[in-house]
Amino acid sequence: MFTDEYFMKIALAEAEAAFVLGEIPVGALIVSGHKIIAKGRNSTEALVDVTAHAEMLAITAAAEAIGGKYLRNCTLYVTLEPCIMCAGALYWSQISKVVIGAADEKRGYRNAGVQLHPKTEVTSGIFEKECGEIVKEFFRLRRI
Amino acid sequence: MFTDEYFMKIALAEAEAAFVLGEIPVGALIVSGHKIIAKGRNSTEALVDVTAHAEMLAITAAAEAIGGKYLRNCTLYVTLEPCIMCAGALYWSQISKVVIGAADEKRGYRNAGVQLHPKTEVTSGIFEKECGEIVKEFFRLRRI
Repeated sequence: MFTDEYFMKIALAEAEAAFVLGEIPVGALIVSGHKIIAKGRNSTEALVDVTAHAEMLAITAAAEAIGGKYLRNCTLYVTLEPCIMCAGALYWSQISKVVIGAADEKRGYRNAGVQLHPKTEVTSGIFEKECGEIVKEFFRLRRI
Repeated sequence: MFTDEYFMKIALAEAEAAFVLGEIPVGALIVSGHKIIAKGRNSTEALVDVTAHAEMLAITAAAEAIGGKYLRNCTLYVTLEPCIMCAGALYWSQISKVVIGAADEKRGYRNAGVQLHPKTEVTSGIFEKECGEIVKEFFRLRRI
């Protein structure tokens, strides 16, 4: 039951909530032992803060839930490939696993040559189409 | 009066406060029109949050002070070269200028090949010795 698809669907629901609120639709959640310990959705507009990406909010909330700043037995599910800022934060967190929905060729950390922590395993392409489509749809509507 | 040295000295006082509180001693402040609109010191231990670097806290506070998420007419003073996470956040903020105290060869964004925003001017080496020494002293004491 607790597959990557199961959790990515919940992250996608966070992205959908961001979409409705006029935010670039990215959702994230952090899981520890099959339990969701933190959720985040991009909130840069609502919080008037460029640092309020879905992953950043989830990392901060997960550390609070755990009572420790390292996320060593945790998995992050995020609908869009993290940017350099979020990849840097994930590095510091030493998170065990990162599961990415859609790639972000332009602003993603991978094409920027940035590395996550050596201890961090990465899986990519879970609900890739859905996770990418919602972002494309957001910008398509903005251009009208 | 409002030289880079003037403001870096205040950032250094933030680093000293972090030192006393058992945090890796890095201090930052953001200036707009000669006015300090935000201060931050590394607070990862106190806030139990790897994202609570001096620059991140200052960026969030500056956006709140301005009432807008872009820091286009602002200058960040930071005692230690920003890491990848903070450089990513500075990129998103489109900040006008970044003034760095000491370089961070190991964890700094420059050796990682990360770029700030094309609109961001960078100056480095202001009170380089003092800004670097306090970090070295912190780790020296930790090893005893």
